[in-house]
Amino acid sequence: MSDELPVAPLAELRRRRSEKWRAFPGDVLPLFVAEMDYDLAPPVTAALTEAVSRGDLGYASSTPELGQALAAFAGRQWGWELDPAQVTAVTDVGIGVVETMRALARPGDAVVISPPVYSPFFDWVPEVGARILEVPLARGAAGYRLDLAALEAAFATHPAAYILCNPHNPVGRVHTADELTELVRLARLYRVPVISDEIHAPLVLPGATFTPILALPGAADIAVSVISASKAFNTAGLKCAAVVTAGPRMAQAVARFPTNPDDRVGHLGVLATIAAFTEGDAWLASLRATLAQRRTQLVDLLGSHLPTVTWTPPEATYLAWLDASALGRDDEPRDHFLSRARVALEPGTKFGATGAGHMRLNFATSPEILTEAVKRMATALP
Amino acid sequence: MSDELPVAPLAELRRRRSEKWRAFPGDVLPLFVAEMDYDLAPPVTAALTEAVSRGDLGYASSTPELGQALAAFAGRQWGWELDPAQVTAVTDVGIGVVETMRALARPGDAVVISPPVYSPFFDWVPEVGARILEVPLARGAAGYRLDLAALEAAFATHPAAYILCNPHNPVGRVHTADELTELVRLARLYRVPVISDEIHAPLVLPGATFTPILALPGAADIAVSVISASKAFNTAGLKCAAVVTAGPRMAQAVARFPTNPDDRVGHLGVLATIAAFTEGDAWLASLRATLAQRRTQLVDLLGSHLPTVTWTPPEATYLAWLDASALGRDDEPRDHFLSRARVALEPGTKFGATGAGHMRLNFATSPEILTEAVKRMATALP
Ligand SMILES: Cc1ncc(COP(=O)(O)O)c(C=O)c1O
Ligand SMILES: Cc1ncc(COP(=O)(O)O)c(C=O)c1O
Repeated sequence: MSDELPVAPLAELRRRRSEKWRAFPGDVLPLFVAEMDYDLAPPVTAALTEAVSRGDLGYASSTPELGQALAAFAGRQWGWELDPAQVTAVTDVGIGVVETMRALARPGDAVVISPPVYSPFFDWVPEVGARILEVPLARGAAGYRLDLAALEAAFATHPAAYILCNPHNPVGRVHTADELTELVRLARLYRVPVISDEIHAPLVLPGATFTPILALPGAADIAVSVISASKAFNTAGLKCAAVVTAGPRMAQAVARFPTNPDDRVGHLGVLATIAAFTEGDAWLASLRATLAQRRTQLVDLLGSHLPTVTWTPPEATYLAWLDASALGRDDEPRDHFLSRARVALEPGTKFGATGAGHMRLNFATSPEILTEAVKRMATALP
Repeated sequence: MSDELPVAPLAELRRRRSEKWRAFPGDVLPLFVAEMDYDLAPPVTAALTEAVSRGDLGYASSTPELGQALAAFAGRQWGWELDPAQVTAVTDVGIGVVETMRALARPGDAVVISPPVYSPFFDWVPEVGARILEVPLARGAAGYRLDLAALEAAFATHPAAYILCNPHNPVGRVHTADELTELVRLARLYRVPVISDEIHAPLVLPGATFTPILALPGAADIAVSVISASKAFNTAGLKCAAVVTAGPRMAQAVARFPTNPDDRVGHLGVLATIAAFTEGDAWLASLRATLAQRRTQLVDLLGSHLPTVTWTPPEATYLAWLDASALGRDDEPRDHFLSRARVALEPGTKFGATGAGHMRLNFATSPEILTEAVKRMATALP
């Protein structure tokens, strides 16, 4: 375990003031929201410490360094060659998706999403006056995947956009190059813009390969990527993400974003992102190795202690999508584990109706906390 | 000068990476964007340093502390009793104004603003699909003030809202209690919601008194305040502001804000704001004393070196609104001083057509830099 990333003692973690540590009473183990318990990557700590000590907390200035850092990172990690000049900083991934949609959709237009999916997708679509068209993931023996036939049927009705989640939260699926190639073909055929939420891309675990949508032939005309360092480097509170385009058509949508984008971007988020994407590879490799260990540990823990809870271990993310439908309906199992085991997981129905009976567990923590959480749940079975 | 706030040497300031220090080449003295050159308030530094060292950079959690800290600060500073439960965190003042407008205005509605005024007001109104109705400030011998008769005529056409700037950037006017009482009367009479941008309230300088709009009788039904610690404590890049209501009608508008507000708020912004509003009074008093010194210094400097540039020293803010119309039209004087004196000021026309011939100078710097800037301008007169 010596090459695993360190986690501070629970009493220290509880002194954090972010949502993970503030939402529940002090006897609850919080494994819900997607924040990690690891120490920060040293280059991120260094960049932030220097800025604070200089009083350097004014307005963000993202160009050209942010795009350059992302392009270099994407090239090293995925062989994706993106143009730094087509990178636009935004407050966060949510704002990136929302403002792209606002530029593409008129009030009343449909926007397609694939539940079970990251719950704010259900808020972002109505935020711009559009309506949700659900095309659930297909569920098979090997887990969840895109339902390309159903997507084609939906695209044929001319929705204003499709919000792709790649990798897919909460199920942890890394869509394959073949699947995404077919998606791009359909998007081009029916002229449906694809907004690809790639926030979890740096969290693809050993064994899977990430395909950036914009690296696929033909995608430039029809797709944008919204990506950030914030999930992999645990800086969600610093408020910086990036919208990436690869051609004039989608760049036009970004040009319609309101105001000077940097005004609403976190300056420390920009500095942390540049540091993470430039000097963070080694730390990120340790993180992925650590998360792979936790994933294996969770296979063992659930197998031994909670065999009625079933799951497909994720190919990416530190999120486990657990099927607890044998233990109760809707969010009963999750609510029970919160009140009786004092373990907070995300309720499955937040991710759409298909999430009934499910719960999402965040395993980006120490082996001890993970063990304790599963044992508490096993002791308090409904 | 010993009780003045310290400013790092220019070579150190130039290592900051915020907009102020990145927008122009290294030989330009940047006195444009509203960032200050002082060291941070010690409680702000302490809060941020602790968070970074704990890896505490996850999602913001603003309630109840943010509202409590603001309420305590507003009570001590202005005798304004606000309800912490009616404080909603937002990304920044811009988002607070925009989302309030979006909740109040339908596409095509008019929203009134009073130029010369903070330039993004001109972007925020069209951002929500509304159109701008300009009611310029009245300009007299004593400087600028609200044109209440013209506002009444505009309110009689039933605009969707009025965006008040109090204190008023760029002219530095602190609207009086009498003026604001009359404004509230008109707003109630014509049922025009007032969105009061009070970001500069903590920067009211010795000699003037700030009146929070919501402290006035009858304002609760018709007004919201958007306020932050970010201008006075120089944390604009941390992305946290607050929308304050005082009654159910305006609270309904805030309830229509998209998504969970904390999602888009900077976590370090929340922590810095709580620290600033709770433990920042002494530092803030030193800041105001320091800025009053710079204001006096600028009176002397302009009087000696640039007598053809006229101005009314501001009652609030660290911004000087300079009338250089004797030196050229539109933004000619400002462009000239940038290219020849290597001093960057804000061009007056950014603040509206009435800003022609003007320029805005930020004096929140050291006595040495301020002297150098004015001397450079005097040497390079058009
Ligand atoms: C798929 C997905 N998109 C977006 C987000 C949130 O990103 P942001 O906080 O940058 O809006 C998350 C957070 O976990 C996520 O899982
Ligand atoms: C009147 C006024 N409102 C708003 C702002 C910007 O606030 P924020 O960065 O929180 O949107 C400024 C910045 O100087 C300002 O002067």
